[in-house]
Amino acid sequence: MSNEPVTVIGLGLMGKALATAFLHAGHPTTVWNRTPGKADALAARGAVVAPTVGDAVRASSLVVVCLTDYTVVRDTLAPHRADLAGRTLVNLTSGTSAEARETAGWASDHLDGAIMAVPGVIATPEAFLLFSGSASAFERHEETLKCLGNGVYFGEDPGLASLYDVALLGVMWGTLNAFLHGAALLGAAKVDASVFAPFANQWVASVTGFVSEYAGQIDKGAYPAEDASLDTHLATMRYLVRESEAAGVDTEWPALVQTLAERARGAGHAGASYASLIEVFRGTPRSDS
Amino acid sequence: MSNEPVTVIGLGLMGKALATAFLHAGHPTTVWNRTPGKADALAARGAVVAPTVGDAVRASSLVVVCLTDYTVVRDTLAPHRADLAGRTLVNLTSGTSAEARETAGWASDHLDGAIMAVPGVIATPEAFLLFSGSASAFERHEETLKCLGNGVYFGEDPGLASLYDVALLGVMWGTLNAFLHGAALLGAAKVDASVFAPFANQWVASVTGFVSEYAGQIDKGAYPAEDASLDTHLATMRYLVRESEAAGVDTEWPALVQTLAERARGAGHAGASYASLIEVFRGTPRSDS
Repeated sequence: MSNEPVTVIGLGLMGKALATAFLHAGHPTTVWNRTPGKADALAARGAVVAPTVGDAVRASSLVVVCLTDYTVVRDTLAPHRADLAGRTLVNLTSGTSAEARETAGWASDHLDGAIMAVPGVIATPEAFLLFSGSASAFERHEETLKCLGNGVYFGEDPGLASLYDVALLGVMWGTLNAFLHGAALLGAAKVDASVFAPFANQWVASVTGFVSEYAGQIDKGAYPAEDASLDTHLATMRYLVRESEAAGVDTEWPALVQTLAERARGAGHAGASYASLIEVFRGTPRSDS
Repeated sequence: MSNEPVTVIGLGLMGKALATAFLHAGHPTTVWNRTPGKADALAARGAVVAPTVGDAVRASSLVVVCLTDYTVVRDTLAPHRADLAGRTLVNLTSGTSAEARETAGWASDHLDGAIMAVPGVIATPEAFLLFSGSASAFERHEETLKCLGNGVYFGEDPGLASLYDVALLGVMWGTLNAFLHGAALLGAAKVDASVFAPFANQWVASVTGFVSEYAGQIDKGAYPAEDASLDTHLATMRYLVRESEAAGVDTEWPALVQTLAERARGAGHAGASYASLIEVFRGTPRSDS
């Protein structure tokens, strides 16, 4: 289906990148945007500019939506639910999993997606697109969607793509903050961030081994301290807080690291592995509160 | 110098593992511990058990110390500073960089070290030992110390090994917490941690690319948003907080992630890259406070 017609609704930076990728891959592409001028460059590349949302929806059996937020999605698509029947709606608008689930009934087939890429890398191997919702829709359109980047399908729950998106971004922020905090600490001892970075990255690669091991423990609900106990971690966490204080570097970040671990300790996990903190993050009732 | 005599002072779990590794590598090994019984198994393997700390220090030109903390190091070694003259002291006791610097003058040559390994992996390729202090001492004893694990030397400042140690452990805690938080979030949507883990680990590998890029920006003091601006990050951080609230999962962790980014935004970095958060971690005076 390399010539499957596609409609792209919403031509912000990302919408434009998506439409460009579809055109480049040879798909007859219809576009619509509230402000029509945004479609000019795409029209010059061969896109059909639909005069109304309804025309845009009716132009293709695959309708890709990338708008500012779900309020705009509702305002734009709600009047056209009859036209969406019999089509596949791929909603790439950023939002929460609850919003994704709410929109799921609007088309015969609905896929919700999250784009882990900036517009500039769409259609390159660096672009990752997360999908969830209708499995048959993903299977049917996988080939077409592939021209946007690497697509991963997570399951029938349409909220999963959004959830994986924020969970993965959270992993990025956690890792980056910890690196930046360490860089600030070492910077106070005149070590350049570029000198620290390769050590941090090499170590992060080892940490992925702990992640795999702890994931297994979490799923089993048992946290044997095969590497180091929470008490061992806590002893060193206190040094991190003290070093931060001494260097005049932010203490809020390491203090929360310590607080969370102490909460797990308070819940009876002193001799357990670090994976026991999952219960703190789950908000399992704590014995120390 | 594969038969260089070594003394190990302090026979806790780690000290025993160190002495065992030296014996296994063929080094004449003298040991001492406050409680003599702890040396029995080592004696059976060929270690010389010194009756006093002074005897232990005088037995070898390389004296490795691994005690509970720096208070114990001071109590144990202070009376033997005359004997330490002319010898190399390798202090592997956990402590702060300030404590490491304080101890540095005690021997002719001093190396401070941090062990990023549990006793069970000492003498395997999984063990990492961080060293700083006398470059000539590291060079002279590198071969001997190698039997404990992979050694990295960071520079003449004896505090660097401790600083790198906590900075790297901080990177681990940041990454693990973020993974555990994400696993809790996805767990609320019935996704197993073992299903999430490979995606998280693959993504962490991409994050190391950002780390390298941001390290360069930090050293230049300029944070161009070549990938995504802080404002773009902040928009998605709010979704992470909302998803956590909706799932009944811990909000303290994502809230701090958001607060730190907002602080950088308040300091004028809205359009800058994520690397601009280094200024928040450095404790640079903020315009919003």
